[in-house]
Amino acid sequence: MKAILLFSGGKDSSLVAHLLKTLNYDVKLVTANFGAVPDCWETAAEAAKILGFEHEVLEMNPEIILKAADMCEEDKKPRHAIDYVHRQVLEATAKKYPNHLIADGCRRDDVTPKIERNEAKSLEDRFGIEYFNPLGGISYKTINYLTESLFITENIRAGAKPTSEYETEIRAELRKRGGDALERGIFPDNHYHSIVLGWKHDQE
Amino acid sequence: MKAILLFSGGKDSSLVAHLLKTLNYDVKLVTANFGAVPDCWETAAEAAKILGFEHEVLEMNPEIILKAADMCEEDKKPRHAIDYVHRQVLEATAKKYPNHLIADGCRRDDVTPKIERNEAKSLEDRFGIEYFNPLGGISYKTINYLTESLFITENIRAGAKPTSEYETEIRAELRKRGGDALERGIFPDNHYHSIVLGWKHDQE
Repeated sequence: MKAILLFSGGKDSSLVAHLLKTLNYDVKLVTANFGAVPDCWETAAEAAKILGFEHEVLEMNPEIILKAADMCEEDKKPRHAIDYVHRQVLEATAKKYPNHLIADGCRRDDVTPKIERNEAKSLEDRFGIEYFNPLGGISYKTINYLTESLFITENIRAGAKPTSEYETEIRAELRKRGGDALERGIFPDNHYHSIVLGWKHDQE
Repeated sequence: MKAILLFSGGKDSSLVAHLLKTLNYDVKLVTANFGAVPDCWETAAEAAKILGFEHEVLEMNPEIILKAADMCEEDKKPRHAIDYVHRQVLEATAKKYPNHLIADGCRRDDVTPKIERNEAKSLEDRFGIEYFNPLGGISYKTINYLTESLFITENIRAGAKPTSEYETEIRAELRKRGGDALERGIFPDNHYHSIVLGWKHDQE
Protein backbone atom coordinates (compact mmCIF):
# COMPACT_ATOMS: atom_id res chain seq x y z
CA MET A 1 0.00 0.00 0.00
CA LYS A 2 1.22 3.51 -0.82
CA ALA A 3 1.96 5.93 2.03
CA ILE A 4 2.48 9.66 1.49
CA LEU A 5 4.57 11.34 4.19
CA LEU A 6 4.98 15.10 4.71
CA PHE A 7 8.74 15.43 4.89
CA SER A 8 11.03 18.24 6.02
CA GLY A 9 14.30 16.29 5.94
CA GLY A 10 14.44 16.42 9.74
CA LYS A 11 14.73 13.54 12.17
CA ASP A 12 11.04 13.35 13.13
CA SER A 13 9.66 12.84 9.64
CA SER A 14 12.63 10.56 8.85
CA LEU A 15 11.68 8.36 11.82
CA VAL A 16 8.13 8.09 10.48
CA ALA A 17 9.54 7.18 7.04
CA HIS A 18 11.54 4.39 8.68
CA LEU A 19 8.47 3.17 10.61
CA LEU A 20 6.37 3.06 7.43
CA LYS A 21 9.11 1.16 5.64
CA THR A 22 9.35 -1.45 8.40
CA LEU A 23 5.56 -1.84 8.14
CA ASN A 24 6.04 -2.64 4.41
CA TYR A 25 4.42 0.50 3.01
CA ASP A 26 5.58 1.85 -0.33
CA VAL A 27 6.62 5.32 0.89
CA LYS A 28 6.63 8.61 -1.03
CA LEU A 29 8.00 11.69 0.74
CA VAL A 30 6.36 15.02 -0.05
CA THR A 31 7.75 18.49 0.72
CA ALA A 32 5.57 21.57 0.40
CA ASN A 33 6.90 24.71 -1.29
CA PHE A 34 5.11 28.05 -1.45
CA GLY A 35 7.47 29.91 -3.77
CA ALA A 36 8.66 32.39 -1.10
CA VAL A 37 12.04 30.61 -1.04
CA PRO A 38 11.80 28.60 -4.25
CA ASP A 39 14.71 26.18 -3.62
CA CYS A 40 14.28 25.50 0.07
CA TRP A 41 12.81 22.04 -0.58
CA GLU A 42 16.30 20.90 -1.55
CA THR A 43 17.47 19.89 1.93
CA ALA A 44 14.45 17.58 2.19
CA ALA A 45 15.05 16.16 -1.31
CA GLU A 46 18.68 15.49 -0.44
CA ALA A 47 17.73 13.72 2.82
CA ALA A 48 15.11 11.65 0.97
CA LYS A 49 17.71 10.60 -1.60
CA ILE A 50 20.23 9.62 1.08
CA LEU A 51 17.60 7.61 2.96
CA GLY A 52 16.47 5.91 -0.25
CA PHE A 53 12.89 7.18 -0.57
CA GLU A 54 10.96 8.58 -3.52
CA HIS A 55 10.48 12.36 -3.14
CA GLU A 56 8.12 14.95 -4.57
CA VAL A 57 7.76 18.72 -4.21
CA LEU A 58 4.17 19.82 -3.65
CA GLU A 59 3.68 23.31 -5.07
CA MET A 60 1.37 25.19 -2.77
CA ASN A 61 -0.58 28.43 -3.16
CA PRO A 62 1.80 31.35 -2.28
CA GLU A 63 -1.06 33.16 -0.54
CA ILE A 64 -0.83 30.67 2.33
CA ILE A 65 2.55 32.10 3.34
CA LEU A 66 1.23 35.66 3.07
CA LYS A 67 -1.63 34.78 5.41
CA ALA A 68 0.78 32.96 7.75
CA ALA A 69 2.98 36.09 7.87
CA ASP A 70 -0.14 38.16 8.69
CA MET A 71 -0.91 35.80 11.56
CA CYS A 72 2.68 36.08 12.84
CA GLU A 73 2.51 39.88 12.76
CA GLU A 74 -0.76 39.88 14.64
CA ASP A 75 0.24 37.25 17.25
CA LYS A 76 3.92 38.29 17.58
CA LYS A 77 4.66 34.56 17.68
CA PRO A 78 4.58 31.85 15.01
CA ARG A 79 2.49 29.13 16.65
CA HIS A 80 -0.86 29.67 14.97
CA ALA A 81 0.76 30.46 11.63
CA ILE A 82 2.67 27.16 11.59
CA ASP A 83 -0.46 25.27 12.63
CA TYR A 84 -2.35 26.97 9.81
CA VAL A 85 0.31 26.18 7.18
CA HIS A 86 0.54 22.54 8.25
CA ARG A 87 -3.25 22.14 7.96
CA GLN A 88 -3.19 23.63 4.47
CA VAL A 89 -0.44 21.21 3.43
CA LEU A 90 -2.25 18.20 4.90
CA GLU A 91 -5.45 19.25 3.13
CA ALA A 92 -3.68 19.73 -0.22
CA THR A 93 -1.91 16.38 0.15
CA ALA A 94 -5.17 14.60 0.99
CA LYS A 95 -6.83 16.26 -2.01
CA LYS A 96 -4.00 15.14 -4.31
CA TYR A 97 -3.78 11.64 -2.82
CA PRO A 98 -7.29 10.59 -1.77
CA ASN A 99 -7.66 7.06 -0.32
CA HIS A 100 -3.98 6.92 0.61
CA LEU A 101 -2.33 6.75 3.99
CA ILE A 102 -1.16 10.33 4.70
CA ALA A 103 1.48 10.64 7.41
CA ASP A 104 3.32 13.38 9.23
CA GLY A 105 5.94 13.73 11.95
CA CYS A 106 4.00 15.88 14.44
CA ARG A 107 5.14 15.07 17.97
CA ARG A 108 3.11 14.60 21.13
CA ASP A 109 5.38 16.98 23.03
CA ASP A 110 5.50 19.78 20.47
CA VAL A 111 3.08 22.63 20.95
CA THR A 112 2.77 23.05 17.20
CA PRO A 113 1.79 21.82 14.68
CA LYS A 114 -0.86 19.64 16.29
CA ILE A 115 -3.78 17.94 14.51
CA GLU A 116 -6.59 17.08 16.90
CA ARG A 117 -8.56 13.86 16.57
CA ASN A 118 -11.69 15.54 15.21
CA GLU A 119 -9.64 17.29 12.50
CA ALA A 120 -7.99 13.99 11.57
CA LYS A 121 -11.42 12.34 11.36
CA SER A 122 -12.71 15.17 9.17
CA LEU A 123 -9.79 14.78 6.72
CA GLU A 124 -10.32 11.01 6.71
CA ASP A 125 -14.05 11.29 6.05
CA ARG A 126 -13.73 13.94 3.34
CA PHE A 127 -10.89 12.37 1.36
CA GLY A 128 -11.02 8.67 2.30
CA ILE A 129 -7.47 8.95 3.63
CA GLU A 130 -5.95 7.36 6.73
CA TYR A 131 -4.07 9.93 8.81
CA PHE A 132 -0.96 8.36 10.34
CA ASN A 133 0.71 10.23 13.20
CA PRO A 134 2.58 7.71 15.35
CA LEU A 135 4.79 10.36 17.01
CA GLY A 136 1.58 11.83 18.45
CA GLY A 137 1.74 8.98 20.99
CA ILE A 138 5.49 8.94 21.63
CA SER A 139 7.55 11.01 24.08
CA TYR A 140 10.41 13.28 23.01
CA LYS A 141 12.84 11.05 24.94
CA THR A 142 11.87 8.00 22.90
CA ILE A 143 12.01 9.97 19.64
CA ASN A 144 15.48 11.24 20.51
CA TYR A 145 16.66 7.75 21.45
CA LEU A 146 15.32 6.22 18.22
CA THR A 147 16.51 8.95 15.87
CA GLU A 148 19.96 8.95 17.48
CA SER A 149 20.22 5.21 17.02
CA LEU A 150 19.00 5.37 13.39
CA PHE A 151 20.35 8.56 11.81
CA ILE A 152 23.39 10.78 11.42
CA THR A 153 21.95 14.27 11.91
CA GLU A 154 23.06 17.89 11.94
CA ASN A 155 21.38 20.61 13.98
CA ILE A 156 20.91 23.89 12.13
CA ARG A 157 20.20 27.09 14.07
CA ALA A 158 16.82 28.21 12.77
CA GLY A 159 17.25 31.03 10.26
CA ALA A 160 20.97 30.37 9.74
CA LYS A 161 20.35 28.83 6.32
CA PRO A 162 17.30 27.83 4.28
CA THR A 163 15.90 24.43 5.21
CA SER A 164 12.65 22.74 4.16
CA GLU A 165 10.75 23.84 7.30
CA TYR A 166 7.68 26.07 6.89
CA GLU A 167 9.57 28.54 9.06
CA THR A 168 12.04 29.29 6.24
CA GLU A 169 9.38 30.68 3.90
CA ILE A 170 7.43 32.49 6.62
CA ARG A 171 10.62 34.22 7.81
CA ALA A 172 11.50 35.23 4.24
CA GLU A 173 8.09 36.93 3.88
CA LEU A 174 8.49 38.68 7.26
CA ARG A 175 11.97 39.93 6.29
CA LYS A 176 10.51 41.38 3.13
CA ARG A 177 7.89 43.23 5.15
CA GLY A 178 9.88 44.56 8.07
CA GLY A 179 13.48 43.38 7.91
CA ASP A 180 15.45 41.30 10.37
CA ALA A 181 13.96 43.04 13.40
CA LEU A 182 10.42 41.92 12.59
CA GLU A 183 11.54 38.38 11.79
CA ARG A 184 13.58 38.12 14.99
CA GLY A 185 10.86 39.59 17.12
CA ILE A 186 8.57 36.75 16.11
CA PHE A 187 10.82 33.71 15.75
CA PRO A 188 13.01 33.06 18.80
CA ASP A 189 16.71 32.94 18.03
CA ASN A 190 17.48 29.96 20.23
CA HIS A 191 15.98 26.98 18.48
CA TYR A 192 17.32 24.40 16.07
CA HIS A 193 16.04 22.17 13.27
CA SER A 194 17.61 18.81 12.53
CA ILE A 195 18.65 17.62 9.09
CA VAL A 196 19.24 13.95 8.44
CA LEU A 197 22.58 13.29 6.73
CA GLY A 198 22.40 9.49 6.54
CA TRP A 199 21.66 6.17 8.23
CA LYS A 200 23.91 5.21 11.13
CA HIS A 201 23.86 1.57 10.02
CA ASP A 202 23.57 0.04 6.55
CA GLN A 203 19.97 -0.69 5.58
CA GLU A 204 18.94 -3.88 3.78
CA MET B 1 16.69 -1.11 25.48
CA LYS B 2 13.93 -2.93 27.40
CA ALA B 3 10.28 -2.19 26.57
CA ILE B 4 7.40 -3.32 28.78
CA LEU B 5 4.09 -3.65 26.93
CA LEU B 6 0.65 -4.09 28.54
CA PHE B 7 -0.69 -7.07 26.66
CA SER B 8 -4.15 -8.60 26.35
CA GLY B 9 -3.38 -11.09 23.58
CA GLY B 10 -5.50 -9.03 21.17
CA LYS B 11 -4.50 -7.56 17.83
CA ASP B 12 -3.88 -4.00 19.04
CA SER B 13 -1.30 -4.83 21.68
CA SER B 14 0.19 -7.46 19.32
CA LEU B 15 0.69 -4.74 16.69
CA VAL B 16 2.53 -2.60 19.24
CA ALA B 17 4.69 -5.62 20.16
CA HIS B 18 5.59 -6.00 16.48
CA LEU B 19 6.38 -2.28 16.16
CA LEU B 20 8.66 -2.38 19.21
CA LYS B 21 10.44 -5.43 17.83
CA THR B 22 11.06 -3.76 14.46
CA LEU B 23 12.50 -0.80 16.38
CA ASN B 24 14.95 -3.24 18.03
CA TYR B 25 13.56 -3.05 21.55
CA ASP B 26 13.90 -6.04 23.84
CA VAL B 27 10.16 -6.55 24.52
CA LYS B 28 8.49 -8.01 27.62
CA LEU B 29 4.71 -8.45 27.53
CA VAL B 30 2.83 -7.93 30.80
CA THR B 31 -0.75 -8.98 31.56
CA ALA B 32 -2.52 -7.73 34.68
CA ASN B 33 -4.54 -10.11 36.84
CA PHE B 34 -6.70 -9.10 39.80
CA GLY B 35 -7.64 -12.56 41.09
CA ALA B 36 -11.34 -12.26 40.22
CA VAL B 37 -10.81 -14.78 37.38
CA PRO B 38 -7.43 -16.20 38.39
CA ASP B 39 -6.57 -17.93 35.10
CA CYS B 40 -7.81 -15.40 32.58
CA TRP B 41 -4.27 -14.21 31.81
CA GLU B 42 -3.76 -17.49 29.94
CA THR B 43 -5.06 -16.34 26.53
CA ALA B 44 -2.52 -13.49 26.62
CA ALA B 45 0.29 -15.83 27.72
CA GLU B 46 -0.56 -18.21 24.89
CA ALA B 47 -0.56 -15.39 22.30
CA ALA B 48 2.77 -14.10 23.66
CA LYS B 49 4.28 -17.56 23.33
CA ILE B 50 3.03 -17.98 19.76
CA LEU B 51 4.38 -14.54 18.78
CA GLY B 52 7.71 -15.28 20.45
CA PHE B 53 7.78 -12.69 23.22
CA GLU B 54 8.68 -12.97 26.91
CA HIS B 55 5.54 -12.75 29.08
CA GLU B 56 4.79 -11.94 32.70
CA VAL B 57 1.64 -11.84 34.81
CA LEU B 58 1.38 -8.72 36.95
CA GLU B 59 -0.59 -9.51 40.11
CA MET B 60 -2.72 -6.52 40.94
CA ASN B 61 -4.64 -5.52 44.07
CA PRO B 62 -8.09 -7.25 43.94
CA GLU B 63 -9.73 -4.12 45.37
CA ILE B 64 -9.26 -2.41 42.01
CA ILE B 65 -11.83 -4.73 40.42
CA LEU B 66 -14.23 -4.18 43.34
CA LYS B 67 -14.00 -0.44 42.84
CA ALA B 68 -14.37 -0.85 39.05
CA ALA B 69 -17.55 -2.89 39.62
CA ASP B 70 -18.85 -0.13 41.95
CA MET B 71 -18.22 2.40 39.15
CA CYS B 72 -20.05 0.19 36.64
CA GLU B 73 -23.06 -0.12 38.95
CA GLU B 74 -23.19 3.61 39.48
CA ASP B 75 -22.67 4.57 35.80
CA LYS B 76 -24.64 1.67 34.25
CA LYS B 77 -21.87 1.52 31.67
CA PRO B 78 -18.24 0.36 31.84
CA ARG B 79 -16.33 3.29 30.34
CA HIS B 80 -15.02 4.98 33.48
CA ALA B 81 -14.33 1.66 35.17
CA ILE B 82 -12.14 0.44 32.31
CA ASP B 83 -10.31 3.78 32.21
CA TYR B 84 -9.74 3.51 35.95
CA VAL B 85 -8.43 -0.07 35.76
CA HIS B 86 -6.08 0.75 32.89
CA ARG B 87 -4.62 3.69 34.81
CA GLN B 88 -4.03 1.49 37.84
CA VAL B 89 -2.23 -1.07 35.68
CA LEU B 90 -0.08 1.57 33.98
CA GLU B 91 0.81 3.04 37.35
CA ALA B 92 1.71 -0.38 38.82
CA THR B 93 3.78 -1.24 35.75
CA ALA B 94 5.65 2.08 35.90
CA LYS B 95 6.28 1.54 39.62
CA LYS B 96 7.65 -1.96 38.96
CA TYR B 97 9.69 -0.89 35.89
CA PRO B 98 10.90 2.67 36.46
CA ASN B 99 13.11 4.17 33.73
CA HIS B 100 11.77 1.72 31.12
CA LEU B 101 9.72 2.33 28.04
CA ILE B 102 6.14 1.40 29.03
CA ALA B 103 3.79 0.77 26.10
CA ASP B 104 0.13 0.03 25.57
CA GLY B 105 -2.25 -0.58 22.68
CA CYS B 106 -4.79 2.20 23.35
CA ARG B 107 -6.26 3.38 20.04
CA ARG B 108 -6.99 6.89 18.84
CA ASP B 109 -10.51 5.87 17.81
CA ASP B 110 -11.50 4.01 21.00
CA VAL B 111 -13.41 5.96 23.58
CA THR B 112 -11.75 4.02 26.36
CA PRO B 113 -9.18 3.50 27.74
CA LYS B 114 -7.54 6.82 26.87
CA ILE B 115 -4.47 8.35 28.54
CA GLU B 116 -4.27 12.10 27.99
CA ARG B 117 -0.97 13.84 27.38
CA ASN B 118 -0.81 15.43 30.84
CA GLU B 119 -1.35 12.03 32.47
CA ALA B 120 1.37 10.50 30.32
CA LYS B 121 3.74 13.34 31.31
CA SER B 122 2.91 12.83 34.98
CA LEU B 123 3.72 9.10 34.77
CA GLU B 124 6.92 9.93 32.91
CA ASP B 125 8.00 12.55 35.44
CA ARG B 126 7.19 10.48 38.52
CA PHE B 127 8.76 7.19 37.38
CA GLY B 128 11.31 8.22 34.74
CA ILE B 129 9.48 6.07 32.21
CA GLU B 130 8.75 6.77 28.52
CA TYR B 131 5.08 6.17 27.71
CA PHE B 132 4.75 4.67 24.22
CA ASN B 133 1.31 4.76 22.61
CA PRO B 134 1.75 4.74 18.82
CA LEU B 135 -1.84 3.62 18.13
CA GLY B 136 -2.93 6.89 19.74
CA GLY B 137 -1.99 8.52 16.42
CA ILE B 138 -3.27 5.84 14.03
CA SER B 139 -6.76 5.36 12.60
CA TYR B 140 -8.78 2.17 13.09
CA LYS B 141 -8.60 1.53 9.31
CA THR B 142 -4.81 1.48 9.36
CA ILE B 143 -4.76 -0.70 12.48
CA ASN B 144 -7.15 -3.17 10.85
CA TYR B 145 -5.10 -3.22 7.64
CA LEU B 146 -1.83 -3.80 9.51
CA THR B 147 -3.15 -6.41 11.95
CA GLU B 148 -4.88 -8.29 9.12
CA SER B 149 -1.65 -8.39 7.14
CA LEU B 150 0.41 -9.46 10.17
CA PHE B 151 -1.71 -11.81 12.29
CA ILE B 152 -4.12 -14.73 12.22
CA THR B 153 -6.83 -13.66 14.66
CA GLU B 154 -10.09 -14.92 16.13
CA ASN B 155 -12.93 -12.68 17.27
CA ILE B 156 -14.52 -13.71 20.56
CA ARG B 157 -17.92 -12.35 21.53
CA ALA B 158 -17.27 -10.47 24.77
CA GLY B 159 -18.37 -12.56 27.75
CA ALA B 160 -18.53 -15.81 25.76
CA LYS B 161 -15.35 -17.12 27.37
CA PRO B 162 -12.70 -15.69 29.69
CA THR B 163 -10.04 -13.67 27.88
CA SER B 164 -7.28 -11.45 29.26
CA GLU B 165 -9.29 -8.21 28.89
CA TYR B 166 -10.10 -6.20 32.03
CA GLU B 167 -13.74 -6.76 31.09
CA THR B 168 -13.54 -10.46 32.03
CA GLU B 169 -12.75 -9.79 35.69
CA ILE B 170 -15.13 -6.83 36.03
CA ARG B 171 -17.99 -8.93 34.59
CA ALA B 172 -17.17 -11.79 36.98
CA GLU B 173 -17.47 -9.43 39.95
CA LEU B 174 -20.77 -7.99 38.62
CA ARG B 175 -22.17 -11.51 38.14
CA LYS B 176 -21.31 -12.29 41.74
CA ARG B 177 -23.20 -9.20 42.89
CA GLY B 178 -26.34 -9.30 40.76
CA GLY B 179 -26.22 -12.18 38.32
CA ASP B 180 -26.32 -12.14 34.55
CA ALA B 181 -28.94 -9.38 34.41
CA LEU B 182 -26.70 -6.84 36.12
CA GLU B 183 -23.70 -7.84 34.01
CA ARG B 184 -25.69 -7.64 30.77
CA GLY B 185 -27.29 -4.36 31.71
CA ILE B 186 -23.85 -2.78 31.89
CA PHE B 187 -21.77 -4.49 29.21
CA PRO B 188 -23.38 -4.44 25.74
CA ASP B 189 -23.83 -7.87 24.23
CA ASN B 190 -22.78 -6.92 20.74
CA HIS B 191 -19.03 -6.39 20.90
CA TYR B 192 -16.03 -8.58 20.23
CA HIS B 193 -12.44 -8.90 21.39
CA SER B 194 -9.72 -10.27 19.14
CA ILE B 195 -7.23 -12.94 20.08
CA VAL B 196 -4.05 -13.42 18.09
CA LEU B 197 -3.50 -17.04 17.05
CA GLY B 198 -0.28 -16.59 15.09
CA TRP B 199 1.76 -14.69 12.51
CA LYS B 200 0.44 -14.75 8.95
CA HIS B 201 3.98 -14.97 7.57
CA ASP B 202 7.09 -16.54 9.06
CA GLN B 203 9.15 -14.11 11.13
CA GLU B 204 12.95 -13.93 10.98
